[in-house]
Amino acid sequence: MRQLLVVGTMALDTVRTPFGAATEVLGGSATYFATAASFFANVNLLAVVGEDFPEAHIAFLRNRGVDLSGLERSKGKTFRWHGDYTSQLNEARTLETHLNVLESFRPQLPAHYRTPELLFLGNIDPEIQMEVLNQVTRPQIVACDTMNFWIDGKRDMLWDVLKNIDVLIINDAEARALGQDSNLVKVARVILERGPKYLIIKRGEYGVLMFHGTHVFGTLAFPLEHVLDPTGAGDTFSGGFMGYLASTGDWSDAGLRRAIIFGSVMASFTVESFSLDRLRALQYSDIEARFRAFKRLAHFEDLS
Amino acid sequence: MRQLLVVGTMALDTVRTPFGAATEVLGGSATYFATAASFFANVNLLAVVGEDFPEAHIAFLRNRGVDLSGLERSKGKTFRWHGDYTSQLNEARTLETHLNVLESFRPQLPAHYRTPELLFLGNIDPEIQMEVLNQVTRPQIVACDTMNFWIDGKRDMLWDVLKNIDVLIINDAEARALGQDSNLVKVARVILERGPKYLIIKRGEYGVLMFHGTHVFGTLAFPLEHVLDPTGAGDTFSGGFMGYLASTGDWSDAGLRRAIIFGSVMASFTVESFSLDRLRALQYSDIEARFRAFKRLAHFEDLS
Repeated sequence: MRQLLVVGTMALDTVRTPFGAATEVLGGSATYFATAASFFANVNLLAVVGEDFPEAHIAFLRNRGVDLSGLERSKGKTFRWHGDYTSQLNEARTLETHLNVLESFRPQLPAHYRTPELLFLGNIDPEIQMEVLNQVTRPQIVACDTMNFWIDGKRDMLWDVLKNIDVLIINDAEARALGQDSNLVKVARVILERGPKYLIIKRGEYGVLMFHGTHVFGTLAFPLEHVLDPTGAGDTFSGGFMGYLASTGDWSDAGLRRAIIFGSVMASFTVESFSLDRLRALQYSDIEARFRAFKRLAHFEDLS
Repeated sequence: MRQLLVVGTMALDTVRTPFGAATEVLGGSATYFATAASFFANVNLLAVVGEDFPEAHIAFLRNRGVDLSGLERSKGKTFRWHGDYTSQLNEARTLETHLNVLESFRPQLPAHYRTPELLFLGNIDPEIQMEVLNQVTRPQIVACDTMNFWIDGKRDMLWDVLKNIDVLIINDAEARALGQDSNLVKVARVILERGPKYLIIKRGEYGVLMFHGTHVFGTLAFPLEHVLDPTGAGDTFSGGFMGYLASTGDWSDAGLRRAIIFGSVMASFTVESFSLDRLRALQYSDIEARFRAFKRLAHFEDLS
């Protein structure tokens, strides 16, 4: 069984959307990623939490089969994010961020984490992403997320990371900021010339595009009547994408296309409730059913 | 050969985008629709222009095989629209509208226009749309477009029209205004309960969704590096959609899906230049090639 390593954040989120609110609930990029990926693959998680992090959240991840040997519990408080969304749910507004134990986080990989076949560098300081890269034997697939804060603040360090990865997974605003153009096709060309082989652009309710050379594949997001909270959708997408790849070992064009759909399937569940609540109740048969629904959504007959 | 009737506007547009500007160029919903549809079917056009409308534009449509018996030339000036777009090209801002000869337009259908198999009611006063409906034997497929101006100003009249059509084709902002909700799946349910059998929601650079009962089909817009002017993309979509249906007579689910793709193909060409310039140079082989590109964009392998 292939090993999939994720480094990222574990957080306590406080979120308000037009459809409700949640206070100090389980969140963070590594949490969403690992939970989604755990439906497909063995996940090794590398993150830090504070003394106040509820034991129940750790038990949840352990019960999903996630290896938590790399979860550090530090003195101090867990990373906290506080945000809200307006009526169309497209963009989170950050009200408060408390880095807490993240500020002094220096990743130390357990010995059995150092030879993963797949690695996901969640949205975190590019210097930490680089430290993780330096501690592993080059995996077959390295994917990476980031955000405008690092694109603006640590652009050179970020490009150093991007030269060492295979797949960059960011949203459209981040892609435009990194590629310095408003046109996503141009942006993709600029980014792919300098670094990763694949660029995946997440567009929230509008779906996902994957660029590779001059090729492009894409999917709509699944149209849903009940969207409660988009928090974590992006990391859930990445978890489904990388988890599916880990389960097949197939990085062909066909394999990557299917992985994009599985990522989109997982994200479509996450937004149906607050925090990871929908994923807690999810069965693998639900995932397969929605994969088929994506096919009905997108496929059409060939020219005769 | 099936007859496809379109009623709508013919206009002289003045447009500015971040990539250029065009002054007093050929535009209007009926113009874009008829030109796109003419690649697939026989089009009968019903519209009004003023004394100042250039003969060359009429010759262009005639050369494309469009029947202009229903084109009225009235005393006065042609309808004019003046608008611009900001950098992401998603929404036009109207700077000026001069209705001119449109203000007194009362459609009179030539005898051979009164039994079309397909009818498209372009975005125009719902009272005019109703007058056209009243002058034709019920076609097999009636599609209709509208805009927020009529949704807000003539909502009851508009609903009367919508009860008599098969396919409503509007953009996402219009759908939300008509269905009075921000969620498009809810909006579709509300609208389909009251009127048309199919709701097609155009989302600009994000593509198109088609709702029918509880079914949904969708496509991304084709990712393009060179988008100069989105004006007319929506009417071009409708022209490709209805023109393809007219060419096949196939209103099955598979036929409608393909029609959505052909509509999207035609729209993807229109935005590549100002006015109808890209359509002027278009070959049918270009259309087929892009249809295949849409398939490569969207299709993925089934679960094994």
